[in-house]
Amino acid sequence: MTEPVYDLIIRGGRVATTTDVFEADVAISGETIAAVGKGLPPAKREIDARGKLVLPGGVDSHAHIEQLSAAGIMNADTFESATVSAAFGGTTTVIPFAAQHVGMKLPQVVEDYHALAKKGAVIDYAFHMIIADATKETVEEHIPALVKQGHASIKIFMTYDRLKVDDEPLLDILLAARQSGAMLCAHAENHGIIAWMVKRLLARGYTMPKYHAVSHARVSEAEAFTRLIGMAALIDQPIMIFHVSTAEGAKVIRDARGQGLKVFAETCPQYLFLTAGDLDKPGAEGAKWMCSPPPRTHSDQEALWQALSLGDLQTISSDHAPYRYDETGKLRAGPNPNFKQVANGLPGLELRLPLLFDAMVSKGRLGLEKFVELTATAPAKIYNLHPRKGSIAVGADADIAIWDPNREVTIADEMMHDLTGYTPFAGRKLRGWPVSVLSRGRVIIEGNKCLASAGSGKFLARSGGEAA
Amino acid sequence: MTEPVYDLIIRGGRVATTTDVFEADVAISGETIAAVGKGLPPAKREIDARGKLVLPGGVDSHAHIEQLSAAGIMNADTFESATVSAAFGGTTTVIPFAAQHVGMKLPQVVEDYHALAKKGAVIDYAFHMIIADATKETVEEHIPALVKQGHASIKIFMTYDRLKVDDEPLLDILLAARQSGAMLCAHAENHGIIAWMVKRLLARGYTMPKYHAVSHARVSEAEAFTRLIGMAALIDQPIMIFHVSTAEGAKVIRDARGQGLKVFAETCPQYLFLTAGDLDKPGAEGAKWMCSPPPRTHSDQEALWQALSLGDLQTISSDHAPYRYDETGKLRAGPNPNFKQVANGLPGLELRLPLLFDAMVSKGRLGLEKFVELTATAPAKIYNLHPRKGSIAVGADADIAIWDPNREVTIADEMMHDLTGYTPFAGRKLRGWPVSVLSRGRVIIEGNKCLASAGSGKFLARSGGEAA
Amino acid sequence: MTEPVYDLIIRGGRVATTTDVFEADVAISGETIAAVGKGLPPAKREIDARGKLVLPGGVDSHAHIEQLSAAGIMNADTFESATVSAAFGGTTTVIPFAAQHVGMKLPQVVEDYHALAKKGAVIDYAFHMIIADATKETVEEHIPALVKQGHASIKIFMTYDRLKVDDEPLLDILLAARQSGAMLCAHAENHGIIAWMVKRLLARGYTMPKYHAVSHARVSEAEAFTRLIGMAALIDQPIMIFHVSTAEGAKVIRDARGQGLKVFAETCPQYLFLTAGDLDKPGAEGAKWMCSPPPRTHSDQEALWQALSLGDLQTISSDHAPYRYDETGKLRAGPNPNFKQVANGLPGLELRLPLLFDAMVSKGRLGLEKFVELTATAPAKIYNLHPRKGSIAVGADADIAIWDPNREVTIADEMMHDLTGYTPFAGRKLRGWPVSVLSRGRVIIEGNKCLASAGSGKFLARSGGEAA
Amino acid sequence: MTEPVYDLIIRGGRVATTTDVFEADVAISGETIAAVGKGLPPAKREIDARGKLVLPGGVDSHAHIEQLSAAGIMNADTFESATVSAAFGGTTTVIPFAAQHVGMKLPQVVEDYHALAKKGAVIDYAFHMIIADATKETVEEHIPALVKQGHASIKIFMTYDRLKVDDEPLLDILLAARQSGAMLCAHAENHGIIAWMVKRLLARGYTMPKYHAVSHARVSEAEAFTRLIGMAALIDQPIMIFHVSTAEGAKVIRDARGQGLKVFAETCPQYLFLTAGDLDKPGAEGAKWMCSPPPRTHSDQEALWQALSLGDLQTISSDHAPYRYDETGKLRAGPNPNFKQVANGLPGLELRLPLLFDAMVSKGRLGLEKFVELTATAPAKIYNLHPRKGSIAVGADADIAIWDPNREVTIADEMMHDLTGYTPFAGRKLRGWPVSVLSRGRVIIEGNKCLASAGSGKFLARSGGEAA
Ligand SMILES: [Zn+2]
Ligand SMILES: [Zn+2]
Ligand SMILES: [Zn+2]
Ligand SMILES: [Zn+2]
Ligand SMILES: [Zn+2]
Ligand SMILES: [Zn+2]
Ligand SMILES: [Zn+2]
Ligand SMILES: [Zn+2]
Repeated sequence: MTEPVYDLIIRGGRVATTTDVFEADVAISGETIAAVGKGLPPAKREIDARGKLVLPGGVDSHAHIEQLSAAGIMNADTFESATVSAAFGGTTTVIPFAAQHVGMKLPQVVEDYHALAKKGAVIDYAFHMIIADATKETVEEHIPALVKQGHASIKIFMTYDRLKVDDEPLLDILLAARQSGAMLCAHAENHGIIAWMVKRLLARGYTMPKYHAVSHARVSEAEAFTRLIGMAALIDQPIMIFHVSTAEGAKVIRDARGQGLKVFAETCPQYLFLTAGDLDKPGAEGAKWMCSPPPRTHSDQEALWQALSLGDLQTISSDHAPYRYDETGKLRAGPNPNFKQVANGLPGLELRLPLLFDAMVSKGRLGLEKFVELTATAPAKIYNLHPRKGSIAVGADADIAIWDPNREVTIADEMMHDLTGYTPFAGRKLRGWPVSVLSRGRVIIEGNKCLASAGSGKFLARSGGEAA
Repeated sequence: MTEPVYDLIIRGGRVATTTDVFEADVAISGETIAAVGKGLPPAKREIDARGKLVLPGGVDSHAHIEQLSAAGIMNADTFESATVSAAFGGTTTVIPFAAQHVGMKLPQVVEDYHALAKKGAVIDYAFHMIIADATKETVEEHIPALVKQGHASIKIFMTYDRLKVDDEPLLDILLAARQSGAMLCAHAENHGIIAWMVKRLLARGYTMPKYHAVSHARVSEAEAFTRLIGMAALIDQPIMIFHVSTAEGAKVIRDARGQGLKVFAETCPQYLFLTAGDLDKPGAEGAKWMCSPPPRTHSDQEALWQALSLGDLQTISSDHAPYRYDETGKLRAGPNPNFKQVANGLPGLELRLPLLFDAMVSKGRLGLEKFVELTATAPAKIYNLHPRKGSIAVGADADIAIWDPNREVTIADEMMHDLTGYTPFAGRKLRGWPVSVLSRGRVIIEGNKCLASAGSGKFLARSGGEAA
Repeated sequence: MTEPVYDLIIRGGRVATTTDVFEADVAISGETIAAVGKGLPPAKREIDARGKLVLPGGVDSHAHIEQLSAAGIMNADTFESATVSAAFGGTTTVIPFAAQHVGMKLPQVVEDYHALAKKGAVIDYAFHMIIADATKETVEEHIPALVKQGHASIKIFMTYDRLKVDDEPLLDILLAARQSGAMLCAHAENHGIIAWMVKRLLARGYTMPKYHAVSHARVSEAEAFTRLIGMAALIDQPIMIFHVSTAEGAKVIRDARGQGLKVFAETCPQYLFLTAGDLDKPGAEGAKWMCSPPPRTHSDQEALWQALSLGDLQTISSDHAPYRYDETGKLRAGPNPNFKQVANGLPGLELRLPLLFDAMVSKGRLGLEKFVELTATAPAKIYNLHPRKGSIAVGADADIAIWDPNREVTIADEMMHDLTGYTPFAGRKLRGWPVSVLSRGRVIIEGNKCLASAGSGKFLARSGGEAA
Repeated sequence: MTEPVYDLIIRGGRVATTTDVFEADVAISGETIAAVGKGLPPAKREIDARGKLVLPGGVDSHAHIEQLSAAGIMNADTFESATVSAAFGGTTTVIPFAAQHVGMKLPQVVEDYHALAKKGAVIDYAFHMIIADATKETVEEHIPALVKQGHASIKIFMTYDRLKVDDEPLLDILLAARQSGAMLCAHAENHGIIAWMVKRLLARGYTMPKYHAVSHARVSEAEAFTRLIGMAALIDQPIMIFHVSTAEGAKVIRDARGQGLKVFAETCPQYLFLTAGDLDKPGAEGAKWMCSPPPRTHSDQEALWQALSLGDLQTISSDHAPYRYDETGKLRAGPNPNFKQVANGLPGLELRLPLLFDAMVSKGRLGLEKFVELTATAPAKIYNLHPRKGSIAVGADADIAIWDPNREVTIADEMMHDLTGYTPFAGRKLRGWPVSVLSRGRVIIEGNKCLASAGSGKFLARSGGEAA
């Protein structure tokens, strides 16, 4: 019998990149992909992937993990629980946040999140640095130093009481990003409009969760996009606009790109599969569907799909932001909170890919190559994780999800591996499921077992990517 | 001899409205126009207007008179000096401001300006109420009450340190305007962008007046327009955008109007006849040409003319804001101020019409009817001064300027009747000049004499106009 | 008793121009307006207009009168019947066509229509010259000569089998218009698209009148507008786009005007008050509502109203094109024609103003001044009939319609004064009606009597107007 | 020694797809790629590609080969000479035309071109069927039958005297394409405008080649695009707009795509690297740079690069249309032809890739992955040649070009392998050159030798691709 040449081979699956889909074996040596081909020589271990799809592991470039909110609520997941759930969903790289609050020193913040991730993560990770306090020291010393250490992206909020960055400090941050070669990501909504809507709604007794969607008036999104884009253009700084939710917002982005501006944008499954109507549930239950910006309308969903198709939006992330539906999370203010007292956010790391696979591959919208692009390759490229991550290519990390395209799963809360305790997508029947997942050549998910140990994920230092 | 039928007749001139230009006598009884026709019966007094143009007196809907700036500087004019200069320039109605500063009660503010105007004004006037402090009392009690008293327009600033109104209180003001039926006028520039530019320019020693123009980055205008329009649309409140200076700003307005939004806009002679290059003078002299927003480029001038032609902009006002070029005004911070220390503003009440007549009528750009529309009829209609003001029509106030279309005047500082001491248009040679001016049937200007006594102007109570 | 000063006075009505509405007497000497004022001295004849509106007579700038169609059908009206019906509807000036067919010499065509009009017209008129045969002689000799004789507008068709002018000869005509200073008016629809739709519809048995609306696919309008505008821009020639019917068409025009192009446009009552649904009647009856382009949807109606409001469209004409609902007209091919065999066109001279008055004044959409502008002043200016026509101004022709704003009329076929025998607006109840009409100082309509004799209307020679 | 596993291996080069660039061996078995990986087992033959780039062979989707023009001129190349030159330039697939002229039966036309290609081609090929005569038989019988035989694309001309298809037959062709699942490609320029310009230019003696560029007025492109897109939208038929040359044209396409329309577009090197100024040469020499549409301005070049970057244009083809600069080609009408007498077209098969490699890879504009996409992968996908052609993927045809990225070549006429005798790019110094080229596993180019025999290229039957 022949000597094994490779450490591992995935045999006979259909491999997909954003360009090509073909039948081939994928051979792995150590942590990386060694070869892709027909009839490759034997390996120490072989996985039979006949009838399966062999896809790059997902890259989720927007997730809140073990993060303290500005309101002082710790979200439901640890790095371990969050990354395990991500892995079960076919995702092998995640970019959570190192979140500064006012008064905190950014290097310490980054160090703290490093420690948490190092302890818990089962998949590889990088960080976006959230800047809430644009002190001179932060902007002129800390950002350049930390970008050099591989934290090549910054996130800012244009809304939220204790997080928002006003226009003047935002320009300081944009300039720091420009000079350091970092991407600037933004939660862009107009703070004043939302605050004014909230004030008036609550004053009139409109307190149920569904009024959260009302309070984020549509114009608050497009307005903030326009303002942010204008400022970024002044500085000539590339930006990534997070979680686009409205048709108007998507149009602002298309127009800006058409003028040659360096504007990137993402949306999330909640904006493609939910609507504001989902918040309209009895009592406080709608809180489970509350996120910011809120889901909108069916017509916005269509506009977002088209924007994805045209390349106006380039990625789909989860914006995983898990809060339990109990007194530790959504109901912290009691069983009958007004919508302003409810923590915003949904769990999403685990179902992002199955939801999109079902829609894009099984139901055929945009197709398999575009699924790979939007969920893995494009985020890897934009955030400069490529060529290590995001594609099945010789020399790349062997981060691979093997999908059974025919497996049908009806989603239930108890099926989920994160600590949120519910999913807003419970009850949906999805076709296509990741059955085995590899991270750097290690099989970390096999059926319903997670084989990875906490802390086995590694930090990914990044330089500037599309922003450089 | 026949008994005089009318009090006064202007014989044989060419009368113009926005619709028609024709030769006719204009007969006045008391304060109003009684008839317009050929061969009208005799009057007690007759003015020979053969070879002259008989036009409605100008309506200047944006002028700062005897107003204390937020920085505590009183501008150079009194109501008397300002309205005398306006009258010499063919303007017979003016809308200055009753300017609240933080902490002031609006009714008292209005009363104070009433007293000043009553004492000094030689032409009729109304007030825009500047709101700098949107307290609950101001918004819920004072605005509705004062609008009912005839002050049917509000002005806010989106920039200037002690005046600017942030998005959230601005929505309160927009709603108060909506509910009261008042127009909302705005100085719309992005405060953060300008502040950031100023900070950086000064830090690097770019202190000369010409850097004022640099500090108001072009995007600060279009951005603020978009934001204001978005908020106004949310409230369904008509707005008037003051002093449009850029092509991009004009485009934002055209697009908004094309969507059916109730957006009105003005520009001023300084944006049609000056450029940023005019601020580039030795020493501090450029301060004489400093206003906000600053003059821009020749290409912006062209864009503004086209926007006027298309109806995207509806009026041309002076934005008269007079500061002497000495230690009481522009040089209050000394003979070598940095640009941030210089009061912004230019005198303009007197030359607004001659400059525009020269360009539009003598040189032919857009023509006489459009001159009448932009400078008199449209502002009268938008601010609900029509049918009393703004046109030559039976029953209207006999506010009339008789122009010699052939008189050529070379502008000089000492020719001006306001107290600024200089004009940014000195040295220009203009063709066409108002030789006699009537206010409510009284001849107030005759050649170079002002015949009106201080305080003879009257307050014009207005209900909501286009805003109602 | 005092000697009469004027020939005629209309006493105490409310006079309206596009600028002003005021109570005044209107005095007439000979054929023109001598004075407008309060308490004017007596006249030989006086009309009591108290409680009435005194408006400029309508100018209908698009009407087919006594015109032979390319298919050889003479339309239902003579100049007498058409102009009598126009006068009953408050219209005092009309611009029908001198319609060349292939092979005809244009000077002869113009002479022939001159003769017809001279014999029959009871109101004043001018001609648009329809060019169907752009021979070298037509373009280089006849057009310049006839424009000099006062025929300062040309019309072309981009569709209709024997009338359409292809792109290459159209450029010749545009250049001839440019060099002569004539306006170029166009029926702009894509011929190939319509022909293709017709061919396919008929082949499949879709022959009822309602399929006429289907055959004129929406895109055939916007496409032809874009093409025409592109060619006119190449030649720098002003154009008037006739009978805009779709929102997309209106948008093309707005965009072109925003680029500074000299594009004017009209719509007609049928596009503001009818929809394609009106053609859906049993048997052939829908033929009564057939015109080209066809009425569209309610949403198009809204778009057209907004385009009128914004000034994107400047005039509303009737496109009067009368064919009897019998074998001489609509049913020339028999009682069950296919839609292609039915002559296109509706009567409209008489009801254009009452329909619009009801909508704009009585129901308040856009208002009285805009009614005057769209139906009288603007067409008079665009076609260079102003200052003689289109406004109530001293020196202008005394073409005046006195309206009873409270008179309610329910429209019936037998009420009409043209020879069509039906009106597509039968059954509508309108508020506001012209009760007396004057042409050049003569009372031509008094209640339900026409006092004018055939041939009393005069030809109006025009130079280039907005096109010059 | 180990037994060879593969037929051929390209060792150690940098492989590029539109997604990934990585170092790897590429192994070939028979005609297809068997594996891509590091340290692959040995092959019968090995090519050392260290320091080289291993790219998919180019797909040139628009080339005129051995084609008789409507004017009766046979172009300069045979299938052999054309495909040899293509191969030397790194192109391994070409889509020339089977060109119907009026009166010809389409099946015979296709058969004739089949015969020519079969005899001469050294690389693989497919055909676009040019329809000049949309008879009922052509549209209803021949097109469906031939599409089923694998000719899944149709080309039409909207200009050129004997080729142009008017709007009505164009709709028949669009519908035939829709029903057959074929792509519709178009040379879209407004015929009337160009014809009119030509007529006037020649009449005034403007006969030199440079006036060719003047005659194709810019608007003739955008207008035809708009018209074609409108008609295609009516039929819901995907279209490919050939050779976009103007910024306005690119904008029309971007807008259409933004509306969700199925519009694809290409440009060519001549529009990215030449300008109208290149036609301005003494005597008739400018004829060498004459093509239709003509090259435009530097600013159009920038607009086209941006449109490629944004995905508004998806492919870059050569539009190879070779005419010798002698009496058989450009000078057929003699040594001093007027521009209308000169055959339009440039040779381009050989230099398309080197020109683009130099600009995109060596000079860095858009980069290597985008080079691969625009020149190989995207055309393969759009025309349904993928996955056989257009990418380096397991199972794909081994059509590979090995590039030396450092080789510098100064272009000279005599270097070219086609029969045109000149190249419009002579004198340019390019960096990066294809040194070996494989077609289906055969080495066809090695240095400056062509190893392929005439007729070794194969026909590629295609079904509908993006159009289906
Ligand atoms: Zn967010
Ligand atoms: Zn988030
Ligand atoms: Zn201001
Ligand atoms: Zn001001
Ligand atoms: Zn028509
Ligand atoms: Zn007509
Ligand atoms: Zn072509
Ligand atoms: Zn071609």
